[in-house]
Amino acid sequence: MKPTNTFLAMSRRAMLSAFAAIPAMPILLPASAQAQTGQAPVGDPLPSWNDTGPKRTILDFVERVTKQGSPDFVPEAERIATFDNDGTLWAEQPMYSQLLFALYRVKVLAPQHPEWATEEPFASLLKGDVKGALAGGEPAIAKIVMATHSGMTSAEFTEIVRDWITTAKHPVTGKLYTEMVYQPMLELVAYLKSNGFNNFIVSGGGIDFMRPWTDRVYGIVPEKVVGSSGKTKFEMQNGKWVLMRLPEISFIDDGPGKPVGIHEHIGLRPIAAFGNSDGDQAMLEWTTGDKSLARFGLLVHHTDAVREWAYDRDSKVGKLDKALDAAPAEGWTVMSMKDDWNKIFPFGSK
Amino acid sequence: MKPTNTFLAMSRRAMLSAFAAIPAMPILLPASAQAQTGQAPVGDPLPSWNDTGPKRTILDFVERVTKQGSPDFVPEAERIATFDNDGTLWAEQPMYSQLLFALYRVKVLAPQHPEWATEEPFASLLKGDVKGALAGGEPAIAKIVMATHSGMTSAEFTEIVRDWITTAKHPVTGKLYTEMVYQPMLELVAYLKSNGFNNFIVSGGGIDFMRPWTDRVYGIVPEKVVGSSGKTKFEMQNGKWVLMRLPEISFIDDGPGKPVGIHEHIGLRPIAAFGNSDGDQAMLEWTTGDKSLARFGLLVHHTDAVREWAYDRDSKVGKLDKALDAAPAEGWTVMSMKDDWNKIFPFGSK
Repeated sequence: MKPTNTFLAMSRRAMLSAFAAIPAMPILLPASAQAQTGQAPVGDPLPSWNDTGPKRTILDFVERVTKQGSPDFVPEAERIATFDNDGTLWAEQPMYSQLLFALYRVKVLAPQHPEWATEEPFASLLKGDVKGALAGGEPAIAKIVMATHSGMTSAEFTEIVRDWITTAKHPVTGKLYTEMVYQPMLELVAYLKSNGFNNFIVSGGGIDFMRPWTDRVYGIVPEKVVGSSGKTKFEMQNGKWVLMRLPEISFIDDGPGKPVGIHEHIGLRPIAAFGNSDGDQAMLEWTTGDKSLARFGLLVHHTDAVREWAYDRDSKVGKLDKALDAAPAEGWTVMSMKDDWNKIFPFGSK
Repeated sequence: MKPTNTFLAMSRRAMLSAFAAIPAMPILLPASAQAQTGQAPVGDPLPSWNDTGPKRTILDFVERVTKQGSPDFVPEAERIATFDNDGTLWAEQPMYSQLLFALYRVKVLAPQHPEWATEEPFASLLKGDVKGALAGGEPAIAKIVMATHSGMTSAEFTEIVRDWITTAKHPVTGKLYTEMVYQPMLELVAYLKSNGFNNFIVSGGGIDFMRPWTDRVYGIVPEKVVGSSGKTKFEMQNGKWVLMRLPEISFIDDGPGKPVGIHEHIGLRPIAAFGNSDGDQAMLEWTTGDKSLARFGLLVHHTDAVREWAYDRDSKVGKLDKALDAAPAEGWTVMSMKDDWNKIFPFGSK
């Protein structure tokens, strides 16, 4: 990705293509169930993985870096593992969850913005005409992002996300978004943790959009979440100190930004990285760059149109093209959802 | 601090005033001893603290937030504690350690830069004329920072710092810099950790300048260090992926930047914060802002001219003025080195 400006950069995750993919606004219904966390049974730590190449490669890698005396042994303090989120830990089709969130917020905020009735892109959006809204191009996208992600305090934004995620449902399956997580990846996160790995999320998504729920859903606490962020300003408001969210991008944690974000937040180079799109390629390159060391890179290949979605090179969301071509020479494991996972979501499949 | 530009901002830590405070280049000698980490004996977790107000206040706070059933109980996941570094965890007089490092690097790099023989501020610096070097003002400072902190890969910079800190000695005491740590604070860090606190360094100093040694010296791993940073770029160099350090500031973690850095890196609001200067005021305000909650803010007041240094309102390094005035109304504990600590450094005192 080569952003021509910061708003366009922000749009990578959320906007043009994903908007185009959905004809109407999603329906949000209240719900109370919560996603299960990955609990690996004794004996087989990865029961939702078929006994195929990828699983064997993972088990072999973990044994080599954790076994005292192994030539590939890595001390616990250096066992950093990084996971992309959208498309790697949970479903990203037919649109990024954060886009769903932005659309929902436009609707919620509309009564406070009577001017939106005639102001694009909001006017079209509120009429359900997403394509019309996008006729405005990048400035329209920027308006949507800024209207929904800034202008409130950090604490208010956290509460907004927390409220939303409690009831937000996937537009196709009708399941809670927090249930749209990949059971095999929950098992993998838990397995690595039990082997002394320090797991981080490194996502192009908004850092403050993920932190309110990643601990509950993945067992990954806020300080271990790396993502894109906007600027904030420390100031006094009505006698209270707050961090105001400004309508300005601070950092885009995608593509070549992922190694930068990893360095800034973690300060160590990962020894294992998991992704699913070209946006994860730099993270995998950074992780596995020194071929003299035992390092692990894995790409989740979405190959199962029946149980999940099948997409790669031509997809508007989660495009996997250059990274797929690079995988063999880089020594990355490419796992196929259709062939290598016997279970997709905790509740089953799409 | 209101930086007029990013270089001036960077200069807060290091430059003008601190330069002015030393007449000549420090002497660096090899050494092998390492600083001791704080081990609190059974019975008294804070033996280097006198049985005065500050110690009692700390013990009381920790009991209130950790005791199940206490109205002030805080779950472990939320027990975030943040520590400033210079002047709070280790000595900052007569100059910031990072300035010492920058001066050392100018000397090391000089042979590769014959042009420095006639180019200010390097020419003056290399002749030992610090005041002359500073006649160039902010642009001179920027040149020194950029020449010593950018233009190499992140891995190279880490090695440079690691090599330096192994032998760097304090210009007054002749002790290793890693021994110039406050024994009472090592005990406090260990005590909080043993009570389920999650300790972070939040310093105006460079994040990559601290990370190579904070685990060894304080038991605080790289991911738990927040500091000022420069921009980096992910790129291929001689067939290897690297993060190049660019001559451009990314973030200044000082003053109102501290709450911003805390939010970006930790994602939770601290419940305890420890500082010593006006640069820590915003961090303490953010930590203790909600007076309905049990929160703790402490200022280390440098009052001991014999065993350490005595300075506050008029100091060029570690100025403590507005924060000292704000302390009573804010409910912050102001501890006096002279009165409240029976030991300063692990080896004794200055």
